[in-house]
Amino acid sequence: MLIHEDRLFPAEPSTRAIAKALYEQVRGLPIVSPHGHTQAEWFAGNQSFPDPAKLFVQPDHYVYRMLYSQGVSMEDLEIGQAEIKDARKVWRIFASHYYLFRGTPTRTWLDFCFQELFGLEERLSEKTADLYYDVISAKLKTPEFLPRALYERFQIEVLATTDSPLDSLEAHKAIQASGWKARIIPTFRPDSVVDPEFKGFAGNIEKLGGLTGGDTSTWAGYLKALRAARERFRALGCTATDHGHPTAQTADLSPAEAESLFREVLRGGADPARQELFRAQMLTEMARMSLEDGLVMQIHPGSVRNHNRRIFERFGRDTGADIPSPTNYVQALRPLLDAFGNEPGLSVILFTLDESTYSRELAPLAGHYPCLKLGPPWWFYDSPEGMVRFREAVTETAGFYNTVGFNDDTRAFLSIPARHDVARRMDCGFLARLVTDHRLDEDEAVELAHALTYGLVKKAYHL
Amino acid sequence: MLIHEDRLFPAEPSTRAIAKALYEQVRGLPIVSPHGHTQAEWFAGNQSFPDPAKLFVQPDHYVYRMLYSQGVSMEDLEIGQAEIKDARKVWRIFASHYYLFRGTPTRTWLDFCFQELFGLEERLSEKTADLYYDVISAKLKTPEFLPRALYERFQIEVLATTDSPLDSLEAHKAIQASGWKARIIPTFRPDSVVDPEFKGFAGNIEKLGGLTGGDTSTWAGYLKALRAARERFRALGCTATDHGHPTAQTADLSPAEAESLFREVLRGGADPARQELFRAQMLTEMARMSLEDGLVMQIHPGSVRNHNRRIFERFGRDTGADIPSPTNYVQALRPLLDAFGNEPGLSVILFTLDESTYSRELAPLAGHYPCLKLGPPWWFYDSPEGMVRFREAVTETAGFYNTVGFNDDTRAFLSIPARHDVARRMDCGFLARLVTDHRLDEDEAVELAHALTYGLVKKAYHL
Amino acid sequence: MLIHEDRLFPAEPSTRAIAKALYEQVRGLPIVSPHGHTQAEWFAGNQSFPDPAKLFVQPDHYVYRMLYSQGVSMEDLEIGQAEIKDARKVWRIFASHYYLFRGTPTRTWLDFCFQELFGLEERLSEKTADLYYDVISAKLKTPEFLPRALYERFQIEVLATTDSPLDSLEAHKAIQASGWKARIIPTFRPDSVVDPEFKGFAGNIEKLGGLTGGDTSTWAGYLKALRAARERFRALGCTATDHGHPTAQTADLSPAEAESLFREVLRGGADPARQELFRAQMLTEMARMSLEDGLVMQIHPGSVRNHNRRIFERFGRDTGADIPSPTNYVQALRPLLDAFGNEPGLSVILFTLDESTYSRELAPLAGHYPCLKLGPPWWFYDSPEGMVRFREAVTETAGFYNTVGFNDDTRAFLSIPARHDVARRMDCGFLARLVTDHRLDEDEAVELAHALTYGLVKKAYHL
Repeated sequence: MLIHEDRLFPAEPSTRAIAKALYEQVRGLPIVSPHGHTQAEWFAGNQSFPDPAKLFVQPDHYVYRMLYSQGVSMEDLEIGQAEIKDARKVWRIFASHYYLFRGTPTRTWLDFCFQELFGLEERLSEKTADLYYDVISAKLKTPEFLPRALYERFQIEVLATTDSPLDSLEAHKAIQASGWKARIIPTFRPDSVVDPEFKGFAGNIEKLGGLTGGDTSTWAGYLKALRAARERFRALGCTATDHGHPTAQTADLSPAEAESLFREVLRGGADPARQELFRAQMLTEMARMSLEDGLVMQIHPGSVRNHNRRIFERFGRDTGADIPSPTNYVQALRPLLDAFGNEPGLSVILFTLDESTYSRELAPLAGHYPCLKLGPPWWFYDSPEGMVRFREAVTETAGFYNTVGFNDDTRAFLSIPARHDVARRMDCGFLARLVTDHRLDEDEAVELAHALTYGLVKKAYHL
Repeated sequence: MLIHEDRLFPAEPSTRAIAKALYEQVRGLPIVSPHGHTQAEWFAGNQSFPDPAKLFVQPDHYVYRMLYSQGVSMEDLEIGQAEIKDARKVWRIFASHYYLFRGTPTRTWLDFCFQELFGLEERLSEKTADLYYDVISAKLKTPEFLPRALYERFQIEVLATTDSPLDSLEAHKAIQASGWKARIIPTFRPDSVVDPEFKGFAGNIEKLGGLTGGDTSTWAGYLKALRAARERFRALGCTATDHGHPTAQTADLSPAEAESLFREVLRGGADPARQELFRAQMLTEMARMSLEDGLVMQIHPGSVRNHNRRIFERFGRDTGADIPSPTNYVQALRPLLDAFGNEPGLSVILFTLDESTYSRELAPLAGHYPCLKLGPPWWFYDSPEGMVRFREAVTETAGFYNTVGFNDDTRAFLSIPARHDVARRMDCGFLARLVTDHRLDEDEAVELAHALTYGLVKKAYHL
Repeated sequence: MLIHEDRLFPAEPSTRAIAKALYEQVRGLPIVSPHGHTQAEWFAGNQSFPDPAKLFVQPDHYVYRMLYSQGVSMEDLEIGQAEIKDARKVWRIFASHYYLFRGTPTRTWLDFCFQELFGLEERLSEKTADLYYDVISAKLKTPEFLPRALYERFQIEVLATTDSPLDSLEAHKAIQASGWKARIIPTFRPDSVVDPEFKGFAGNIEKLGGLTGGDTSTWAGYLKALRAARERFRALGCTATDHGHPTAQTADLSPAEAESLFREVLRGGADPARQELFRAQMLTEMARMSLEDGLVMQIHPGSVRNHNRRIFERFGRDTGADIPSPTNYVQALRPLLDAFGNEPGLSVILFTLDESTYSRELAPLAGHYPCLKLGPPWWFYDSPEGMVRFREAVTETAGFYNTVGFNDDTRAFLSIPARHDVARRMDCGFLARLVTDHRLDEDEAVELAHALTYGLVKKAYHL
């Protein structure tokens, strides 16, 4: 067997027993996925997923960044190609390098998929590459493996996608019009129209005006168009926005200063500091709009995007070369918090790629400001050790109730159950340790296991 | 029962057994509390503590910051009011939100107090709020709960308060004059007269002159007045100073530069960098005076005070909105260390709110400079996980003997035994793990448990 | 007995059993030591080591920095003296302070040496000081304790020293000419000729020219001389270079800019920023040369050298007062990576003294760039807890195969087996935890234990 019933539980037997008992209480709860990168088109069209390489290798930057780091070329993996020419060859390369993932969450997620979804029980390797390829290919063609069937099999209660304000959201509309009883909702991610460094920024803002029927060449018109775009998302069930800035910097300029800055970045040629100031100001504007329309704000700062220049030039954005960098929150968030930090109607969820901020800045901030909550460990830290470090670093200062449950944050639809399963196990293990140490009673641990799995995410994301 | 006999010990049975055996050796040792924020007035007057809300909620920023973070208003908790109008109502709010503290040290400390001092055994909740209120209120009126009786019951050997150079120290004098056999001593905390950003700075310096009978309008007169103030503290048993600067920056200006800087900050209008430079210079001046008079220096840097502007404007300093920030020691301390770092007569205890500095800067510094020692984990890190991280991060580089035992650092007098108990348990657990791993022999662990509980603090603080 | 058969294994019995089984598979493997500070002269001359103080105290900054931190004077330890006048007195001071090392890796290494090499079984203390001194002194005079005999007894397969480009490498030549079958190889460490702040920089560059027979007063001549020097090292078996810069900053100037900068630093008087830029440029030049000649690059940044001014002035470089500082990699390495990051022929091993970078920067970088690998935990982190933190922080993102096995990095030749033993035990313990948690199968753990002990280091260092 690839996966063991007791995986990820603490080794010490009495703690493990408590962890298992807690897990039994939550393993069957529905999946609430408030933040991720699946495509609404999959569920609108409900077509078969094409092949194992297209499904598991090509879209998963966790997978190909590791292969690339060990000398496998991006070309051999056909990364960035719309159609994969030799999917079996790509799969064989992946299979023969599968040992590289030992000790990584990718391995844990994939083994879960292989066994639980495809019934595979022998480890993936060069030797079993073709067996895997054939079994997975065959199953993908069956009705049970169509996107909607999988959605239901996974017991997903809500699934949020991540979408540009320039997206027509046709797929979301089609799902809702189809009568299929699923809750798939968009998330408002405005990078393309709030980040002056985004490709085609000025054109994007013009397009935004076109979509909402207003003039976006003025600051007031631009803000109005953003409000209209948010409204368009809300009408389709959206409850949250998402902001992926290089830093957590916020600003609170006077309207006149903001207007002048807007004109400057729109013209192009603003220097990096002014571009950063514009993004900073836009976080505060988004908070202001959230106060009005109730959308929850997610802030995901601290990633240096496209770090590898040649890979970026050749393969484009999001191809596995984003690297975290030191992130400051305590000074950076101050302008936004000075303006709205004590507003009961505002809800801001903070994420980090700089774990040193958990105990130093994020837990103290979330343990004080009513509007702040802490997102789950993100990206590289969506992992067993990352989850332990997160709970150990934040719980004593911010408690459990200033956290918001789990985000799977994935492009890999089939990995969703595996990822939620890891989170449930790790949370139950953490709670079990508190019970064994007599820091928590067992009835409280049961209540918390439920909250961390289901209650907090629904509340925090207004679902 | 609220608390378990084996709480906080490692789960693995053989390690737990060693931890328990070590703990038995130190649980009965007297409490030495060299740094905290209790009030000498309590012991001078020896009046009953008023009521549960005034005792447990109002003065404890750990408590009300968590409540505030979850939407409870400061007004409903009557924070900042001299008299609580409806103490029972405040208590009920607290009780019904007590679940928020799950997994926090506050919960551990309070449960200890509730059970050990008040005999309560059912968990605090909305349901038991009134029971708690009545039991605690009744006991507080009995002679056994007067401050001096509790001091004796807690087996406190020394208790240091934290005091301004502008304080008359009348309460300390009264205690000493009363013939009561307790050792309650002041600590010299000069923020109000060394920090140009402190409210009323210039006036404070004038007052300092008034108290010590000298002219503080000149640099020489100011330094002389500080020396006299320190002497006044020493005469009442003070053995240490405490410095709570925004950063750990020190400076070593020439007397002429220092004098000119002093005049500048005294006039007002010095910019933030010059104000910071003055604080930096004053750390070095304090080190110079410590070399002369033997007072131990404590440096507590890295807190951004009063982060929440509205809370600060409405409720004032120290109302739960101080947030740690990244802190540098390695460059910041250099001017002071260049001047006095190798003086055998100097003793400087360093604290941090930036745990990333423990293994990177603080342990290497304390593991080399004879004048440097490391204070225990402070504030948000005065917690089980914080203590584990501290020992794991510093012991291998600085050893145990460059640390100084425990500080309870509390305003909550009744929590003192609980806090020391947590520290003793966690240290015994850490030592037990070293014994189980065969990194340490059991006889050494016994010696160390005693040193960490009692020996090191007495030596480090010259008690 | 001083050391226990099960030392450093996890406490939980089933995990410990797995760790022991893994350790049995690797305990007998030869030692590959690709980075350290032993002296080739020892093996060329093969003379007896003089006495216990000269062997264990005087050269080991881990030892005397701890003693100094607790008030023992450098003079009493005779640090920096070519000849020790009263070796027994130095030894007695050390012995009576041996308790200071409780909980440190130094204690673990020394106890291993004392028991395994000298047969001592009673703990070192004031009481046993003379016994130790006599036993060790006597054994050191026997043929079994000559450097070459110990090299063979330790089962060393390769031992790399660290050497200046200005070194004649006569000792290495002598070893190779002697016919003794050992592989002792130099490492190219060019600080003295690439760091404008190095004592005698301009003179060193002139000397470099002299050694290689070229004119180093021009940029082209200087680069040519460096190439020739590298070639001289390679001819003696060298496979790696080592770069100990204050930061990880790299630069990629045009040849004209580089030439002008070279002239400026050579003249003297370049300001600190320009000196730093020159070091940064030289990292990129070294990478370029590595691409040509295949030498592996090691980058060891982040140490503030000679932090204690008085100790430096009196005792010189490397006397125990180097302190780590915050280190940035993500921006600093970009110029080098932009130039050569995707070259399959380049191999760069990164080390850190700032553990916060492991999960934030180093693992993501090494988990993507084909040229980057992560060195083992270095210096203060060459310790049980340091090793655990390293594996926990990097494995999930970079896997095991982007790491390079263990470096003992020691000046203390006799501690080599002890240090490798600690690394083997800690790696087996880490793997055992993954097996107990069902994150890894046992056959994979066996394969990994072998790779972490032997396979990866040979591959990474081209041995």
